[in-house]
Amino acid sequence: MNGAERLVHALLDGGIDLCFANPGTSEMHFVAALDRVAGMRCVLGLAEGVVTGAADGFYRLQDRPAATLLHLGPGLANGLSNLHNAKKAASGIVNIVGDHASAHLALDAPLTSDIAALAAPMSHWVHRVARAESVAADGQAAVQQACARPGRVATLILPADAAWTAIAGPLDTRGARPPGLAAPEPLDTTAVQQAATWLRDDGPGTLLLLGGRALRADATVWAGRIAAATGCGVMSAFYGARIQRGAGRVAVPRVPYSVDAALAVLAPYRRVVLVEAEAPVAFFAYPGKPGRLTPAATVLMTLSRAQQDAQAGLAALAAAVGAGSQVAGVVAGLPADQPLPTGPLDAAAVAAVVARRIPEDGIVVDESISTGRAFDAATRQAAPHDWLTGMGGSIGFGLPVAIGAALGAPGRRVLVLEGDGSAMYTPQALWTLAREGLDVTVLIFANRAYRILLGEFAGVGAGAPGQRASDMLSIDRPTIDWLGLSRAMGVPATRATTVAELDEQLARALQTPGPALVEVVL
Amino acid sequence: MNGAERLVHALLDGGIDLCFANPGTSEMHFVAALDRVAGMRCVLGLAEGVVTGAADGFYRLQDRPAATLLHLGPGLANGLSNLHNAKKAASGIVNIVGDHASAHLALDAPLTSDIAALAAPMSHWVHRVARAESVAADGQAAVQQACARPGRVATLILPADAAWTAIAGPLDTRGARPPGLAAPEPLDTTAVQQAATWLRDDGPGTLLLLGGRALRADATVWAGRIAAATGCGVMSAFYGARIQRGAGRVAVPRVPYSVDAALAVLAPYRRVVLVEAEAPVAFFAYPGKPGRLTPAATVLMTLSRAQQDAQAGLAALAAAVGAGSQVAGVVAGLPADQPLPTGPLDAAAVAAVVARRIPEDGIVVDESISTGRAFDAATRQAAPHDWLTGMGGSIGFGLPVAIGAALGAPGRRVLVLEGDGSAMYTPQALWTLAREGLDVTVLIFANRAYRILLGEFAGVGAGAPGQRASDMLSIDRPTIDWLGLSRAMGVPATRATTVAELDEQLARALQTPGPALVEVVL
Repeated sequence: MNGAERLVHALLDGGIDLCFANPGTSEMHFVAALDRVAGMRCVLGLAEGVVTGAADGFYRLQDRPAATLLHLGPGLANGLSNLHNAKKAASGIVNIVGDHASAHLALDAPLTSDIAALAAPMSHWVHRVARAESVAADGQAAVQQACARPGRVATLILPADAAWTAIAGPLDTRGARPPGLAAPEPLDTTAVQQAATWLRDDGPGTLLLLGGRALRADATVWAGRIAAATGCGVMSAFYGARIQRGAGRVAVPRVPYSVDAALAVLAPYRRVVLVEAEAPVAFFAYPGKPGRLTPAATVLMTLSRAQQDAQAGLAALAAAVGAGSQVAGVVAGLPADQPLPTGPLDAAAVAAVVARRIPEDGIVVDESISTGRAFDAATRQAAPHDWLTGMGGSIGFGLPVAIGAALGAPGRRVLVLEGDGSAMYTPQALWTLAREGLDVTVLIFANRAYRILLGEFAGVGAGAPGQRASDMLSIDRPTIDWLGLSRAMGVPATRATTVAELDEQLARALQTPGPALVEVVL
Repeated sequence: MNGAERLVHALLDGGIDLCFANPGTSEMHFVAALDRVAGMRCVLGLAEGVVTGAADGFYRLQDRPAATLLHLGPGLANGLSNLHNAKKAASGIVNIVGDHASAHLALDAPLTSDIAALAAPMSHWVHRVARAESVAADGQAAVQQACARPGRVATLILPADAAWTAIAGPLDTRGARPPGLAAPEPLDTTAVQQAATWLRDDGPGTLLLLGGRALRADATVWAGRIAAATGCGVMSAFYGARIQRGAGRVAVPRVPYSVDAALAVLAPYRRVVLVEAEAPVAFFAYPGKPGRLTPAATVLMTLSRAQQDAQAGLAALAAAVGAGSQVAGVVAGLPADQPLPTGPLDAAAVAAVVARRIPEDGIVVDESISTGRAFDAATRQAAPHDWLTGMGGSIGFGLPVAIGAALGAPGRRVLVLEGDGSAMYTPQALWTLAREGLDVTVLIFANRAYRILLGEFAGVGAGAPGQRASDMLSIDRPTIDWLGLSRAMGVPATRATTVAELDEQLARALQTPGPALVEVVL
């Protein structure tokens, strides 16, 4: 058995049975091993951002890692942007990155680069396999890293000779612990008591800011009980790896993206209790505006960190404040007879249609950028669903993450809300959607501009953009034909120019097996 | 004048008047500065690999750098793969990478990453602007790095506050030396004498291995004179940043990609004289095969390094061996009445058609991968042209480099030879070809597989690929519709399934202004 086969065994024994791949020559022994060792599902991406984004999406739905297979430094580099998102989302991933055979590195062949240095900024853990004898143990270590709580991005560099060298002797990589997410660390009872004191002292002046697994429905219901008992606020950051929301669940409004709006929303709170969340900060800095979004006099404390169990922390806090079974902020469903919006197909109309059409137990992947700024409030009463956003601000996240989400949640529909500019960073994901026949519906919001940047340009105080700036902020010359692009990669597509067309096309796409794309002309 | 405006002035005064851009919020002040300060042409790429590859192509034709504009760490990461190629090609580039305002970094906002660490493996020089006061000098330093001989990849990290802060006082960034490539270092006369001794001693047993600027026609003609006088061999590595070749020029055969073929070709040589070239090594390592491609007993020496003037070095060597005006290896043109190949549209037929149709003074960008293995010999007698290949082995290089080559050589036609698998890494380049109306003709070799990897898989000795391996090595399910994909991004397209169709469509595309794509079904 060679090193590559031992590594495949180590991954399978560690509970990893899905590999998103874009291999090259130096990974051929690993590809051959995937053939010979049964058990791994292999999904090809035609660009590496597809591969890494898909692994992020899979983790968010499964709470367990997938593997990726990438081709040396440049292949890893192409996947780093979505690894950045995954790292900020605390999505566990095991990246297998091939490298030259160790003796070949000294020759400085064209594809030689410092893979470990490239991997470090977007990985929690980087390790280079020294020889075939250690590859199984190295693979186990990588799996353990990825399965940590919170999840970690583990990058294992596999030299070709470590993959091809045959090793005698036994292989036992069945782990001592069950595969999947590591057990939580104990609660901090002092923090629970401190938070309870704050809430008893001034409930309405206190905000529970939820993040990470505190945004799952089984945790938010405890936040709703605490709010019912104390009158506290409940919110999340603008971004969330997986927000369980919709009708019947506790409303957890997102802090707005705009600095001014965020400051206004957070202004009433003198105290903020962080539940698997970071202190809220502005996405970007602006001259003369604060970076921290809470008032200067507001104090913050941490109830529960990502290493702990957020649901248990909230439950303990509920007990400490004497909360009962009453739950505040439970969202009502949309009225059954709510009419379609009249008027033009604009962002508000899109939100209304999306709210009507999000399927029960659906998954929304949100890379809507400027179009989606008001989607939070407008879709709150949709059928219960999971809402996934980019966590690191890297663009080109939506379509790849949808692949992984669909594979991580068989039987559930995935709806991607995608800006046209952002979709163009990883359009190759459409091909994988088609190949795998995934139940993913993509809405492309075709405003034919980097609309968010037009807003930011105005915010700079530079007035109206001139020709050179306009050339860099608009993507309307030529117009991208999303129907042609989608169909060229095997995904059926339609175009909606009115509210009724969007509603009808979206409904049909969501009821049809396999992927579909709707270009929403704004 | 703010820091961003001072930086634009510094770039312009350093001779940089073209900026390939994919900006974001943190670069808005720089975008606004490009609006206010006249003189910079700005070309938008919808993905960062397009941006960096285009800068590589521009340098190869102009021997002077363009700038890129990239959005923080993830934007840079997406561009690293083609920067890897550029670095190995010694293409000078000034990357401007925006970053958070310095005070904002401490808040660890979502887009925060270690940009300098990411940049280092694919840059020769990385510098972070400390404050607006220093940005003009930092910009000058970056330009100087990029204009070094050989060219260098210089990455300048521009925090938003350094861009937006207004600075009083004078600005003088007009350089002391003229813009463009730095002057060469003096020749090594000892090396010239040593090489002359070798050639006089055993001309036919000695190989001149040319690389870098030694592959320009004004240098290769000296190699041909030396060969005429001494009987030596003249070759280049498989890869070349810009090979001037074709009818009337000296033939410089490329060392084959395949290790076995390369060993056979180099076996006759006991001595190798490197002229701006590296010792030839295998692209990848294979079990039981050597990494160095020259025989073990063969000795190597360097006549001229990239810091020197290769043409002058060869001229000095020609004088030292008493070479006259006779030039060996001058290539004859194709017979005017050469018929089209009969038979199926395969790689050999494609090569024959391409050889007929390469336009006088055209530019060929070669990312043909498996289809193009025999193109070197088959196209040698084409009309004189420049041939550009990937230098670092990163895939997704061809279409972006064509953008820069076209902008760097107005009035000359660019022909891209592109595998379908490799084209899918940076298909967004088609959109920029359309927007800029560039005279670029793209041949997509649609074999619907990672054909090179199927060969490598067989080389691993794993037999025929099973289902899991096949899934990762073929891209035929679904079939990519290159006509649809190309037209969706504004590039007219046709499909050729016979030799006659390819010949006719290629001829027409090369005579029509603007870009065009021909899908060559293999």
